[in-house]
Amino acid sequence: MKTWHCPVPPPFSEKVVLAHGEGGKAMRRFIREHISSKLALGSAMDDSAILNLPQKQLAMTTDSFVVSPLFFPGGNIGSLAVHGTVNDLAVAGAQPIAISLALILEEGLEISLLENVLESLRNAAEACNVTICTGDTKVVQRGAVDKLFINTTGVGCLQTKFALSSANVRAGDELIVSGPIGQHGMAVLCAREDLKLVPTPISDSAPLHQECSALLLGLGANLRCMRDATRGGISAVLHEWAMDAQLSMQIDESRIPVSAEVRGACELLGLDPLYVANEGTMLIAVARDHSVRALEVLRQLNPATKAAIIGQVVPALSAPVVIRRLHGALIPVDEPQGAPLPRIC
Amino acid sequence: MKTWHCPVPPPFSEKVVLAHGEGGKAMRRFIREHISSKLALGSAMDDSAILNLPQKQLAMTTDSFVVSPLFFPGGNIGSLAVHGTVNDLAVAGAQPIAISLALILEEGLEISLLENVLESLRNAAEACNVTICTGDTKVVQRGAVDKLFINTTGVGCLQTKFALSSANVRAGDELIVSGPIGQHGMAVLCAREDLKLVPTPISDSAPLHQECSALLLGLGANLRCMRDATRGGISAVLHEWAMDAQLSMQIDESRIPVSAEVRGACELLGLDPLYVANEGTMLIAVARDHSVRALEVLRQLNPATKAAIIGQVVPALSAPVVIRRLHGALIPVDEPQGAPLPRIC
Repeated sequence: MKTWHCPVPPPFSEKVVLAHGEGGKAMRRFIREHISSKLALGSAMDDSAILNLPQKQLAMTTDSFVVSPLFFPGGNIGSLAVHGTVNDLAVAGAQPIAISLALILEEGLEISLLENVLESLRNAAEACNVTICTGDTKVVQRGAVDKLFINTTGVGCLQTKFALSSANVRAGDELIVSGPIGQHGMAVLCAREDLKLVPTPISDSAPLHQECSALLLGLGANLRCMRDATRGGISAVLHEWAMDAQLSMQIDESRIPVSAEVRGACELLGLDPLYVANEGTMLIAVARDHSVRALEVLRQLNPATKAAIIGQVVPALSAPVVIRRLHGALIPVDEPQGAPLPRIC
Repeated sequence: MKTWHCPVPPPFSEKVVLAHGEGGKAMRRFIREHISSKLALGSAMDDSAILNLPQKQLAMTTDSFVVSPLFFPGGNIGSLAVHGTVNDLAVAGAQPIAISLALILEEGLEISLLENVLESLRNAAEACNVTICTGDTKVVQRGAVDKLFINTTGVGCLQTKFALSSANVRAGDELIVSGPIGQHGMAVLCAREDLKLVPTPISDSAPLHQECSALLLGLGANLRCMRDATRGGISAVLHEWAMDAQLSMQIDESRIPVSAEVRGACELLGLDPLYVANEGTMLIAVARDHSVRALEVLRQLNPATKAAIIGQVVPALSAPVVIRRLHGALIPVDEPQGAPLPRIC
């Protein structure tokens, strides 16, 4: 039986070239040697994966990651891509099962950089018990993309019979944040601008599926809604919930966990941590008098959790979101038009 | 009850700005007015979609589209994104159900251009009976991406109990191509280079799910394998099948349908249509003596089909793919390292 694999492989370019994306021998080899192997996949990924689900109801989510820089304290675009997609499924009440991986590479990208990213991505996927099931690789000419963009699309199985959505939120519900806010956005911004702050903010990029599962199990229908507070920070989530429920969200600045380094960096740059992105921190709305139970559930998973009750849902006020500032005044939280931080995820 | 929608909307920029991707009010409004509305979705897409499947077995595929130019004779990046993903599912033997849509937009992109693309995408999805179920929108600064990239990830339900794969291919099987080859690659190349050929090649971009379903139904286990011949053209598919099956593929140049305009453009540019990408044309391997039945099935769907029997699978020769050229000689078909045509999908 004949085999036609090249007996003496020509030395591989250490940079990505256009031929790596054009469907020929160079592409098959590039994917086998530098992508599939780093992802610990037995073979090149097929165009279509076949998944056997435990049930017929499926949750699906998609995210493109365009973060700049690609590496930041606490993570990189690879781990971030897994966490972002896992968290979108988890807060919807779904157990993540599999993700697809689509890479867009700039001609000239260092292959070693790509491999580092893929190793992080693989480790993150393994830690979340998620299969990388199918993929796609495109290469575009120099200047047509900034180094490396990743799309991950995830599927998962719903763990609930009741749908978790902001439509469940009621006046009297209590609001919890699962950890210190603003870590991810400030970590990326400080890395991008090369601000040498000491200590430097570190991204909170992490999966939330265990916390979400435990809360679903521990609180049942008293868990109203969960949402990872990514672009726009907790302000964006609170505004969305307020709009959807036609209620107001009242929070207390003194109760919101913010690390010293994020507070310092925000003060230096004139930013409010309420608006800064997170990638492993969520807002949780629970029925009145169930917030202490929710904190217990989170503490069982992580005794050092900094999760905190930060406020409550109230009948509609003159603004969708209001905050009791440290000096005592109750003032509206503006919903910004945009955010001051592009490309944080 | 209060509503907080801006009573007098400020006039919208006609170009995409960074704020359209940053999680604030501008992003919510941009998605509502310029994305969800063009996709005919009732509301902004949720981060996660919930799908109710007819079965527990799922096919999943992902593709990023980076085609340049965005518009070409016969389609644009929007319709192409749907066809590419639908076809990956269809040739695997799956009925497409839903796709996710992730957009990466360059700051400064004309919003009207985006809307045109999304309308094409919507029309293509409707024609394939596929739901656009969830989405993501990122905006990056000028120069960080070339105008507009799209990722579509699709899920579908397997229609077969037997898996369709190149592992099924046997010596003696017959090879069919479903239409004239090289149309898509030449259409994109001629548009990109502004070659004013008359008549101009037109892309074959089209969904193949009906053909695939009909072949599955009509041929049962005598249908060995199907594959849309995208990057690398039919040469790439034939090489892949040959490698996987450790057999050779023998084709006959005189039987391969090539339109006059593609033949002319290829001659002018020194290209071989065997290597040029298709986006609505597939290779089909069927058991010996079943190719005529396969053609009948395709003709029932489309009496004007140019599908043709082009060769057969033979025991391993000195090369994985061989072609009988018009002048009578049987010669190897090289597998190119790359292809001469970047960014055709």
